Amino acid sequence: MAALPVSPLAPATQPVLPKVAGVRLAGTAIGLKKNGGRDLMLAELAPGTTIAGALTRSLCPSAPIEWCRKALKGGKARAIVVNSGNSNAFTGNAGDLTVAATVKGTVAVVGCQPDEVFIASTGVIGQPLPPDAISRALPDIAKNLRATGWKDAAEAIRTTDTFAKSVTRTVAIGETRVTINGIAKGSGMIAPDMATMLAFLFTDAAIPADVLQAIVDRAVKRSFNSITVDSDTSTSDTVLFAATGATKHKPVTQADDKHLKDFRRAVESAMIELAQLIVRDGEGASKFVTIKVRGATSGGAARRIGLAIANSPLVKTAIAGEDANWGRIVMAVGKAGERADRDRLGIAIGGVPITRNGQIVDGYDETPVAQHMKGKEIEIEIDLDIGKGKATVWTCDLTHGYIDINGSYRS
Amino acid sequence: MAALPVSPLAPATQPVLPKVAGVRLAGTAIGLKKNGGRDLMLAELAPGTTIAGALTRSLCPSAPIEWCRKALKGGKARAIVVNSGNSNAFTGNAGDLTVAATVKGTVAVVGCQPDEVFIASTGVIGQPLPPDAISRALPDIAKNLRATGWKDAAEAIRTTDTFAKSVTRTVAIGETRVTINGIAKGSGMIAPDMATMLAFLFTDAAIPADVLQAIVDRAVKRSFNSITVDSDTSTSDTVLFAATGATKHKPVTQADDKHLKDFRRAVESAMIELAQLIVRDGEGASKFVTIKVRGATSGGAARRIGLAIANSPLVKTAIAGEDANWGRIVMAVGKAGERADRDRLGIAIGGVPITRNGQIVDGYDETPVAQHMKGKEIEIEIDLDIGKGKATVWTCDLTHGYIDINGSYRS
Repeated sequence: MAALPVSPLAPATQPVLPKVAGVRLAGTAIGLKKNGGRDLMLAELAPGTTIAGALTRSLCPSAPIEWCRKALKGGKARAIVVNSGNSNAFTGNAGDLTVAATVKGTVAVVGCQPDEVFIASTGVIGQPLPPDAISRALPDIAKNLRATGWKDAAEAIRTTDTFAKSVTRTVAIGETRVTINGIAKGSGMIAPDMATMLAFLFTDAAIPADVLQAIVDRAVKRSFNSITVDSDTSTSDTVLFAATGATKHKPVTQADDKHLKDFRRAVESAMIELAQLIVRDGEGASKFVTIKVRGATSGGAARRIGLAIANSPLVKTAIAGEDANWGRIVMAVGKAGERADRDRLGIAIGGVPITRNGQIVDGYDETPVAQHMKGKEIEIEIDLDIGKGKATVWTCDLTHGYIDINGSYRS
Repeated sequence: MAALPVSPLAPATQPVLPKVAGVRLAGTAIGLKKNGGRDLMLAELAPGTTIAGALTRSLCPSAPIEWCRKALKGGKARAIVVNSGNSNAFTGNAGDLTVAATVKGTVAVVGCQPDEVFIASTGVIGQPLPPDAISRALPDIAKNLRATGWKDAAEAIRTTDTFAKSVTRTVAIGETRVTINGIAKGSGMIAPDMATMLAFLFTDAAIPADVLQAIVDRAVKRSFNSITVDSDTSTSDTVLFAATGATKHKPVTQADDKHLKDFRRAVESAMIELAQLIVRDGEGASKFVTIKVRGATSGGAARRIGLAIANSPLVKTAIAGEDANWGRIVMAVGKAGERADRDRLGIAIGGVPITRNGQIVDGYDETPVAQHMKGKEIEIEIDLDIGKGKATVWTCDLTHGYIDINGSYRS
């Protein structure tokens, strides 16, 4: 298909990522993408790098996912290899052979153990990926590894993305400043757990693998698992976070170390920014929607109610039509399966209260809400008023563009 | 909004419903619909009529739903009053007052007990419905009750439906022939449990309320709860089945009475036909999709897998694009949360096997499948190959028409 115009919700500028000591990257084209664009990324990680991650909960996962699930148990990484253009999912034994060949090729160029190699693939499902498609390209791409290769790497993992996604943070652990860089891809098949969504984060901090995993688990819940574009969960979703340990700082032994607080916050903030960038590139999106739920029986209940609203095609098409159709929000709250009281529910859009105690507010004037709906950033607030649980989720509207893109993806 | 063209999936002809002894109906216009169409239905039922039903599981149900839930406990019915144009949902105490006034008005014109009156409302959510809007129209509509009023009644319950939906069956209980008539409405906010979907069935058979309820429970699962248009569940979904007992036949005492077998089958078949008519009127639908799942660990698992496929926006847009994108079917199976084995999964479209044992079949030729995708009736078969559970679900594709309709419903 023809290249898509850049999403109207894309940020005006993209950050230039600084170096992260211990990380070198490259992105190149090996012919997997029909348009000839970059489709292979290699990240080389310094010896001693720890790794943690979160993988799709799909019960039909891709071959690379099954590999990563095993490799993550070791908690050590020397390389991350990612291709776009072919997801190597539902390719049976052939898929496993391709993973094995890719691992072998990476071991040869990087000089490491097989379980220090992590692989992700994204693109069309069910098309065989020749065993040596990636491995034969590795010696060449390895020659191009650079500490400044972030832009090429972010390009190489794109599929239907209309812009490359990257974030950076610098933060202190004790007295020492460390860097966190992240890149991500994804714009459709996006839902919690987790959609064709790939995100790779890197830091020069020295964090034990189990601590890194605890940080990832918490941050993923509040970021990548709190976004949805279309409720579809991919066979290939992957978040990996590598810590090279190249920068020495006050030692870290557990996730709740006090001197790790800023780092934890920076990771969560970086992941939320990446997750929001994915929503801002939602297929066909014309509005970025923030849904804040409070007063639920628990945080989990609040998140499920938020996602029921965010996934409702009726809510999403109403937003696309700039229609403040709050009745559909009531419908979505009702179908979420979480406790709610019709006669306590409060809804506000754009900061304007519309309902309170289960009824439209006296003298409700839709004018300012209609004005808000015409903007690109929509804010919906729900107050269940029966508990203290709260959560925020992000989504986009459902437009003709989504159908244009997805009715002809393979052609 | 302007009247929609009739769905391309509408049946070529509509049945003329015969009389059902003990049932008289009328449909009229009372100004709730902006276009001035019929928007109030009254069905009067003979003394002794039993009733059973299934109501939305939404936790923010409409006032009429809460009324019906209580009234169903009595198992007796003398009247069903349905309005379109306003769902009387999320209208707080005002909604309850409107229901009370409508019940009172119906008691007056029919001459019955309050808990023999059943009410359903469909249309915009959250707009107050004046207390006497319906009750003041009841004396007039009661004058027009006719045993032949089926067409007017089916018209009066429509909202965005592009055609009226009705079915009929005749079947023997013992030696005696009885009739089952049904009318339904719904084309969006359609998903199990159960969407803005109203269906009313009537028979002249004499069936105790508890037996009727058992028959409804089973048939609803295989019909209305096996369809989805957009995964959205309404605040107002209602199925009611009234048995007037006006025709005398071999007595019925329990649902598994042998002489009730044909009747049970006819009810299920009538409900499936009504459910399919709703899908055929799915907002913007251009293809009717049947998804048959077998080899799952249980019937429930098969149904959930079928619905995960049927609800996937990516599957539905691919079908709209006439793209045999079976990779998205794999994705949907994976996200269903039911046990599946990637290496056993078989998929066929239009009767053509595409994958077997988790891989594309040798020499797969897409030509006949691509041809099938161009038709209006799409059949997808899934074989999990790990158990004996099976289920069939029905859905439609997701097109630009859906977005056109739902981006401007209130305007």
